[in-house]
Amino acid sequence: MLKKSKLKIIPLGGMDEIGKNLTVFEYGNDIIIVDCGLAFPDDEMLGVDLVIPDIAYLVKNKDKIRGMVLTHAHEDHIGALPYVLREIDMPIYGTRFTLGLVTPKLKEHGLAERAALKPITHGNVVRLGVFSVEFIRSNHSIPDVSCLAITTPVGVVFHTGDFKIDTTPIGGNMIDLARIGEIGRQGVLVMMSDSTNVERKGYTMSESTVSVAFDEIFRANRHQRIIVATFASNVHRVQQIINCAEQYHRKIAVSGRSMINVISVAIELGYMKVPKGILIDIDEITKYKPEELVIITTGSQGETMSALTRMAFSDHRKIKLGANDTVLISATPIPGNEKSVYRVVNELFKLGCEVIYESLADIHVSGHACKEELQIMLGLVKPQYFVPAHGEYRHLRRHAMLAETMGVKKDNIFIMSTGQVLEMDNTNAKINGTVPSGRILVDGLGVGDVGNIVLRDRKLLAEDGIIVVVMILSSETKTIVSGPDVISRGFVYMRESEQLIEEIKTNTNKSLIRCLAKKTNDWNTIKATVKSDLSDFVYEKTKRKPMILPVIMEV
Amino acid sequence: MLKKSKLKIIPLGGMDEIGKNLTVFEYGNDIIIVDCGLAFPDDEMLGVDLVIPDIAYLVKNKDKIRGMVLTHAHEDHIGALPYVLREIDMPIYGTRFTLGLVTPKLKEHGLAERAALKPITHGNVVRLGVFSVEFIRSNHSIPDVSCLAITTPVGVVFHTGDFKIDTTPIGGNMIDLARIGEIGRQGVLVMMSDSTNVERKGYTMSESTVSVAFDEIFRANRHQRIIVATFASNVHRVQQIINCAEQYHRKIAVSGRSMINVISVAIELGYMKVPKGILIDIDEITKYKPEELVIITTGSQGETMSALTRMAFSDHRKIKLGANDTVLISATPIPGNEKSVYRVVNELFKLGCEVIYESLADIHVSGHACKEELQIMLGLVKPQYFVPAHGEYRHLRRHAMLAETMGVKKDNIFIMSTGQVLEMDNTNAKINGTVPSGRILVDGLGVGDVGNIVLRDRKLLAEDGIIVVVMILSSETKTIVSGPDVISRGFVYMRESEQLIEEIKTNTNKSLIRCLAKKTNDWNTIKATVKSDLSDFVYEKTKRKPMILPVIMEV
Repeated sequence: MLKKSKLKIIPLGGMDEIGKNLTVFEYGNDIIIVDCGLAFPDDEMLGVDLVIPDIAYLVKNKDKIRGMVLTHAHEDHIGALPYVLREIDMPIYGTRFTLGLVTPKLKEHGLAERAALKPITHGNVVRLGVFSVEFIRSNHSIPDVSCLAITTPVGVVFHTGDFKIDTTPIGGNMIDLARIGEIGRQGVLVMMSDSTNVERKGYTMSESTVSVAFDEIFRANRHQRIIVATFASNVHRVQQIINCAEQYHRKIAVSGRSMINVISVAIELGYMKVPKGILIDIDEITKYKPEELVIITTGSQGETMSALTRMAFSDHRKIKLGANDTVLISATPIPGNEKSVYRVVNELFKLGCEVIYESLADIHVSGHACKEELQIMLGLVKPQYFVPAHGEYRHLRRHAMLAETMGVKKDNIFIMSTGQVLEMDNTNAKINGTVPSGRILVDGLGVGDVGNIVLRDRKLLAEDGIIVVVMILSSETKTIVSGPDVISRGFVYMRESEQLIEEIKTNTNKSLIRCLAKKTNDWNTIKATVKSDLSDFVYEKTKRKPMILPVIMEV
Repeated sequence: MLKKSKLKIIPLGGMDEIGKNLTVFEYGNDIIIVDCGLAFPDDEMLGVDLVIPDIAYLVKNKDKIRGMVLTHAHEDHIGALPYVLREIDMPIYGTRFTLGLVTPKLKEHGLAERAALKPITHGNVVRLGVFSVEFIRSNHSIPDVSCLAITTPVGVVFHTGDFKIDTTPIGGNMIDLARIGEIGRQGVLVMMSDSTNVERKGYTMSESTVSVAFDEIFRANRHQRIIVATFASNVHRVQQIINCAEQYHRKIAVSGRSMINVISVAIELGYMKVPKGILIDIDEITKYKPEELVIITTGSQGETMSALTRMAFSDHRKIKLGANDTVLISATPIPGNEKSVYRVVNELFKLGCEVIYESLADIHVSGHACKEELQIMLGLVKPQYFVPAHGEYRHLRRHAMLAETMGVKKDNIFIMSTGQVLEMDNTNAKINGTVPSGRILVDGLGVGDVGNIVLRDRKLLAEDGIIVVVMILSSETKTIVSGPDVISRGFVYMRESEQLIEEIKTNTNKSLIRCLAKKTNDWNTIKATVKSDLSDFVYEKTKRKPMILPVIMEV
């Protein structure tokens, strides 16, 4: 029977979207999962904290699952783990650093005991049912990243994960192009590859180029305190800041929970080298002169509650910024975050700080391969089939076109959607149906209890607020016992709109009387009439559409 | 008395913000106003349609106002006119094209009769009380733009307006640098200058360079229908599209209300040259083959209701897009619009269209001067004092630094806030206090009835929704007659959360009984207790903070 099985590749996230990367590989009775990421809510998902993939398909096929393989420790690749592990037990394979960041996350959710974390090193091959997975050294904006070569009964799947080709990475471990080339020569059935930067020409700069800019800035700002904001997980960036601090004889203080977390994991596991005595507690900074200090902080995306934002709005308990401070934002705003970042920059300038950010200096490089690097990967792996991964539709489409120019047959390229099933053997491949998939919204403790109806209501409420009209009716006599009373929130400022509120009452009263005169028995009909009449009236008066909530109490 | 007066420069908008440009110049008993713009609401201003400056200061000083002068016809410079004219009558001076776009706007608000619009041409000098204002030809991304040289009793104010230096503009009218140089040589007291692109090195490309890219794209897509989205007001961009259409023998259809508006004004006033018979009605497009058509449309910023967005989501009544279409987005996303634009791009790709946008081709240039151009302006005008204008704080700050390197004394540079008063004579200048200023929010028909409290409520409602608890209490017996009933919106999906709703009822009941047992007379105290108890309970259960609205009805 196995002979006749086909390989199924099923992305449950990450296709035509940024985030919640989770791909299922299935053959006969075996399933493995690559990555388990979350996504951040977009502007329409009001009040939502984070988004995870719908894993109904995995829950249903629980018994087939042989394990999960992680490419690296970014949130969009590991962030949904606590939610998935609550439903399904399975062994989890990843590099030491990757699992190092998974561990505290699981602890926080009380899952540390249950999870079977299996550390691997690059070059290792892990057998999971019919699959064997080789972990290959790669480069990205976090340490200990892997490409995956997954041998299946129908051929080899090469999964790049997130990658760039960094010939001079910090730490000295360049992506293992030799091994990738070897795998390519032996024959790859299908490649899935990172599409994030496909629109950018040329090469992504090496992480180590950043230190040139850092050095210049440290030199030019020798009398200033220096504050650097960057992504907590970018250990190599932080390492370069540490190196610069050492060179210029500055102490380092760290601010921001995730920055403290990652730095301690990185030091503990040996991924970061910190000279003795250079790290000081944030409470000690008052003992040093500005020119003796570097502060490394979170908040490079202008996140509301982050350390840098709090500093900018003079709301940080330990750090007050002013004219003695030079702030470096060593990151690019992720699309959608531009306004928040610039808001922070403006505030920093107002405090008198010097601010150095992306549009002014080369203090950031991307972690994703640009066009030339993507072509190198396609040229080395020479896959028979190609599935562009990790991107919005425009990225997938451009990457598909690129693969075609690099010699992959047009019919052998599949732009997939989340939930689609790509079924293949060693001679054929086609999209064959879909499995249940989608997004599960997490809001506070609730996982999945906020859906489209709740979101639609939040949007209505956000736009024009709510008007609640309450009335007491007598079910016997069909008369108004009390009310209607009107309360509104987010509609108009009630104290300054007494006349309008009075008119709303009068209008509701009229609707009620009209309904009751018809001897209407059904409270729902009355509610619907009141709602519809009042909507019309309010729109006529204000051109606004607040939510209208009629409440009838019976006595 | 006049001898002793000082010139006051009072920005009522446009400083440390993008939009609502309005600057007051006051001397003795005379006031003139430069521009009268609106701003678009930022993400925090939920449900708000647009933002206008607070003009309380102008209303109070109505009698001093001698007139308003417009630099150009962009919304952030003329959009608040209907709201200001409702309060204050005054003559309005601007170029023919500028007034050409003001007219339909005033008509829409029923103000066309009242407004005294005074067309000027470049080189004209208008006397307004003690002021005389010279209009100088300039370049930007809309036709008929002016710099202003305002002669006052204490010296000349040079106001650049929005500008770039375009040596090869469409229409052939380069900014009048010779006249500006002459004015500079005669001595300028203070310059206010456009800061938008101060962070960008070098020069802004000429508008006419865009036609090279257009030509290439038209040639490469000779079998496709071509759809071009751009800003409606960018008449010269539209002209280039028309020229290209003519050259490649295509007919042109126009979609989008503002695009139709601007094109008809531009044609009527002679600012656009359209070959006879080339414009067709949108209903006629079915008569032509794809390669015989160009469609010019609004929606280059991914605006929800715009024509291009409706096409992308297959929601446009007249235009269906598919594999025969090549869509050009001839614009850059304004910060904050990136996600909306890319959403549209993704949808267009999904329809099978070819999409060409900013990151892929040079089909857009900015309308604002880059660093080198700003330096030329500073070098020509050589002002004694300098006020960077038109920008966020970071732009103003950078522009101030640039002016310093160009020889303006540090103490003579003023980074102003909206509402501040810069008081000056020919030897001294200082910030001297503030006048009332701020933002007025327009929502539907309401102007100013949405303030901070309403916005705060909308934000709360947007995040976690609302819980309304209604109860009938007897004022005589202090007992519960009916309820509490619980209704929620935007909190959880009620039908799937019956247990939680029941618990909320029980919890409210307990609070009530506790209050009534104490013989509390005051409904407000009861409401406060119910609200506080229920907030705690709900947060404990869900880690969410919905708005809680207790309603007590008395019988």
